Amino acid sequence: MATDPRPRVLIIGGGFAGLQAARRLAKAPVSVTVVDRRNHHLFQPLLYQVATAVLSPADIAAPIRAILRDQANARVILGEVQAIDLASQTVHLAQGELGFEHLIIAAGATHAYFGNDAWQAVAPGLKTVEDALEIRRRVLMAYEEAEWEADAAARRAKLTFVVIGGGPTGVELAGALKEIAARTIPRDFRFIDTTTAQVILVEAGPHLLAAMPAASQQVALDDLQAMGVDVRLGSRVTAIEPGAVVLGDERLPAANIIWAAGVQGAPLARTLGVPLDRQGRVIVGPDLAVPEAPNVFVVGDLAHRVDDATGRPVPGVAPAAIQMGAYVAGLIADEVAGASPGARAPFRYRDKGSMATIGRNRAVAAVNGREFSGLFAWVLWSLVHVWSLIGFRRRVFVMFSWLWSYLSFTKVARLITATPEPQLTRPRDPQSPEGATVPPSPQTDPP
Amino acid sequence: MATDPRPRVLIIGGGFAGLQAARRLAKAPVSVTVVDRRNHHLFQPLLYQVATAVLSPADIAAPIRAILRDQANARVILGEVQAIDLASQTVHLAQGELGFEHLIIAAGATHAYFGNDAWQAVAPGLKTVEDALEIRRRVLMAYEEAEWEADAAARRAKLTFVVIGGGPTGVELAGALKEIAARTIPRDFRFIDTTTAQVILVEAGPHLLAAMPAASQQVALDDLQAMGVDVRLGSRVTAIEPGAVVLGDERLPAANIIWAAGVQGAPLARTLGVPLDRQGRVIVGPDLAVPEAPNVFVVGDLAHRVDDATGRPVPGVAPAAIQMGAYVAGLIADEVAGASPGARAPFRYRDKGSMATIGRNRAVAAVNGREFSGLFAWVLWSLVHVWSLIGFRRRVFVMFSWLWSYLSFTKVARLITATPEPQLTRPRDPQSPEGATVPPSPQTDPP
Repeated sequence: MATDPRPRVLIIGGGFAGLQAARRLAKAPVSVTVVDRRNHHLFQPLLYQVATAVLSPADIAAPIRAILRDQANARVILGEVQAIDLASQTVHLAQGELGFEHLIIAAGATHAYFGNDAWQAVAPGLKTVEDALEIRRRVLMAYEEAEWEADAAARRAKLTFVVIGGGPTGVELAGALKEIAARTIPRDFRFIDTTTAQVILVEAGPHLLAAMPAASQQVALDDLQAMGVDVRLGSRVTAIEPGAVVLGDERLPAANIIWAAGVQGAPLARTLGVPLDRQGRVIVGPDLAVPEAPNVFVVGDLAHRVDDATGRPVPGVAPAAIQMGAYVAGLIADEVAGASPGARAPFRYRDKGSMATIGRNRAVAAVNGREFSGLFAWVLWSLVHVWSLIGFRRRVFVMFSWLWSYLSFTKVARLITATPEPQLTRPRDPQSPEGATVPPSPQTDPP
Repeated sequence: MATDPRPRVLIIGGGFAGLQAARRLAKAPVSVTVVDRRNHHLFQPLLYQVATAVLSPADIAAPIRAILRDQANARVILGEVQAIDLASQTVHLAQGELGFEHLIIAAGATHAYFGNDAWQAVAPGLKTVEDALEIRRRVLMAYEEAEWEADAAARRAKLTFVVIGGGPTGVELAGALKEIAARTIPRDFRFIDTTTAQVILVEAGPHLLAAMPAASQQVALDDLQAMGVDVRLGSRVTAIEPGAVVLGDERLPAANIIWAAGVQGAPLARTLGVPLDRQGRVIVGPDLAVPEAPNVFVVGDLAHRVDDATGRPVPGVAPAAIQMGAYVAGLIADEVAGASPGARAPFRYRDKGSMATIGRNRAVAAVNGREFSGLFAWVLWSLVHVWSLIGFRRRVFVMFSWLWSYLSFTKVARLITATPEPQLTRPRDPQSPEGATVPPSPQTDPP
C-alpha cells in the first residue's frame, strides 16, 4: 500500500483555533487530520442563548465534516485523545495511534471550580451543548415546579437564580435570565408572578467584565441593576450546596445555580509533560510552540502566552483563538515550503475589542479604543456574532430567531426534552382555585 | 377561600386532540386544566425530519403554556397521570389528585412491539422528541463508525439501515435515510462510499401505505425502489437482535434498526377498568364517551371507534385527533349550556385525505378521492404540514430549513449531542493513507 509522502499535520480540536488552522492549510502540501470528541464545531459565544431557550443547538453548531468537506487535504476523526507522546511523536486515541510531523493542540478549556469539584453537580457550567441544554432544562423546570409548589420558602428558592462569575458569560446569562422572568413567561403561569423571580450575579472581583474598559464595566453594572439583577461585587463564593450558595456569612437559598467563573485547560494537556500554569494551560513561547518541541503548537484557550507588547496574557476569547490558529498554520506552511524554524516571527495578538450583551437590546462594546453602549452596541454585537457563524443558513436562522424573540418577547426554543419529574417540597393542592389576579407574594402566599 | 363554581374540564394530554379540545372551550363557562408529562405540544408528522437531521426539535414543538397563555379559563400542569378513578371522579398525579366534572383522555399512543418488548432497546420507535434525537444520534454515529471500521462485515452492517413498518412513518423514514446516504454526506467521508449504504423497508402486509388508495401505494413503491430502497413486502419480522433483523429464514445484518410498525394505547388506559381493544385503546361509543360514564371521553390515538358510516376504525392520524377533540369540546360546551346528554349527535370522521413524502421532492397524496403524486403532491404536503404548525415562527423556520435542505442537499441539524463513544469491531489504522479515490467495496476492502 502506497504511503502518503506529505507531512502530517494533526490538529486536536475543531473549535475556533483548530478549524482556522485546518482551513488555512488547505493549499499547503500537507495532509491535515482534525480529531475532536464531538462531531460539531460550536459557536460558544452564543451558547448562553441555547441555555436561555432562544436558540436551538443546531443553530450554533456545524458538523466539522461539513465544514471541511471540500478541503481535499483534510480528514476528520471523531475520537477522544487519551494521551500525547512527544518523544515518539504520536497521539493515542481509543481507536489507535496517530503519528505526526506537526501537531496543533487546540483542545480548549473546561470548567474549573477552584478545587471544589463537588460544586459541579449543583452548579453546572456552560461550555458545551449538553451544558446549555441542562441549564435550559433546569431553568424551565424551576418555573414549572414553582407553579405547583405550596411551600413558600421552597417556591422562593425555585424562583431564585444565582450566576457565579461576572465576565461576559455571567453578565449575558444574568441579563437573559431576568428577561425570561420579567418579559417572556409571566402570562404562562397562573399561580406565580414570575416577575418576582430574583437573579443574583456574584463576582469575586471589584468589577464586572474585568477585561473591558472601566466605562463599559460601569454601563454593564448600571444596566443590569436597572433590569433588576442583584449584582454582588467583591463577593466570593465559599460554599455551594444543593439549594443554596454561601458567600462568607450570607447564605442565599437558590434552586438554580450556574457557574460561569473559572476555566482550566483540557486535561489532556497534563499528558504532555511540559510546564502548565495554575489553570492547567500550556506555557508556550513567542511562536506558540511547546518548549523543546518546535513542531508542537498549542493554540486557543489551552495556550498560556504573555504578549510581549502588552505584558498581559492572550485572553481566552474567540478572536484570539482564531488569530492563533491562523498564525500557526502560516508557520507550518512556510516551513514546509522551506523556511527555517529559527526565523519565526513572534505571535502578536491584535485586540479587536470585546462586547457583551445585557438583556434584550443593550450591550457594551469596546472596539479600537472606542466604547459603545446601548442599542448601537447591541446591533454591532449582533452583526459581529452572526457574521462569525459558519454557514448562510445559520446566520439567517439566528437573525430571524432574534428578531422574533425581540418582537414577540418569546423565547423560541422553550423545550424540555426527556420526561421531567417535578421535585416538589410540598405540592400545591391541584384543586386550588384559579388565583393570580393577586400575584402571590412571599409574605401572603396561602399555606 | 372561595371555590371556583365552574364545572371542571380536565384534559389529559396536550397533543392534537387535547389541545384542540382545550382551545375550543375557551369561551365556555368552564375551567380547563391540561395535564401533560411534557411541557410541549409536538407536531408528530414531522418528527421523522428531526430523526433525519433536517429539523431541530424546537422547530416542531411549542410549549403548551405558551399556546394556552392567553386563554383565561385554561391552566397547565406538568405532570404524569398515574391512575384514573372513575368511581370517585378523580385523577391521580404524583403531586396530588384532581377532580373533574368532565374528563377528556387524550393521552395518545406509544410503541408496540407485538409482545416482544426486548426489541425496543435495539429498534427504537419514533413517537417523542427523545426518540427522534436517539435515532438521529444512531444514524450519524453509524457513518462515523463505518468510516473508521476496518472489519468489512462490521462496516457493511453499520451502513445498513432497516426500517420496520410500511406506513407513512416507515416510508418517510426510509426515503429520508436513503437521501442522507446518497446525496447529503458522500463528500464528508474519505474511506467509505456512503452511496453504497443500504436502506431496507420491511412490511408484513402486501402493500405499503395500507390506508391509502392502491394507486398511491404503487407510486410509493415505485419511487422508493427508484431511489434504491430495498422494499420487502409480505415480510414479517420474527426476531430482532443487536446487529440483525430476522425475517423467517433470512437474517439481515444491520446495525441500524428503526421500529415504525405498531402502536398501542397509553398505559394509563388500563387503570380505567373499561374494555380495551387488542392495541390497548379504549372502546368508546358514538359520542366518544366511555361506556357507563357519559362525562368521560377518550379522543385521539387512544380511542377505538368504528365509524358507523364506513365500518372502519377512525385512524390514528392528526386530522382525526383534531376532529375528535373539537367534537367533544362542542358536546361539553352544549351541555354546560343546558343541552341534554341524551341528545348527542354521533361523531363522524371526515376523511380529508392522507399524504406521505418519498425523498426530497416526491410524495403521494389522496385528497377527496383524487390522487396526486410527484412534485405537486410534495408541495401540497408541505403546505398542509407547515400550515398546521402552531406559530408563525415555526412555519417560517421549517419552510426555510426545507428550502435550504433542498437547494444545498444538506441536512441542517446534523448534531450529535453528548460525547459519542464510537464502537468499532476492529478500528481502521488511523495511519491509513488517504484513500477513497476508489471507493471501498465489500469484496476489495483492505484487511
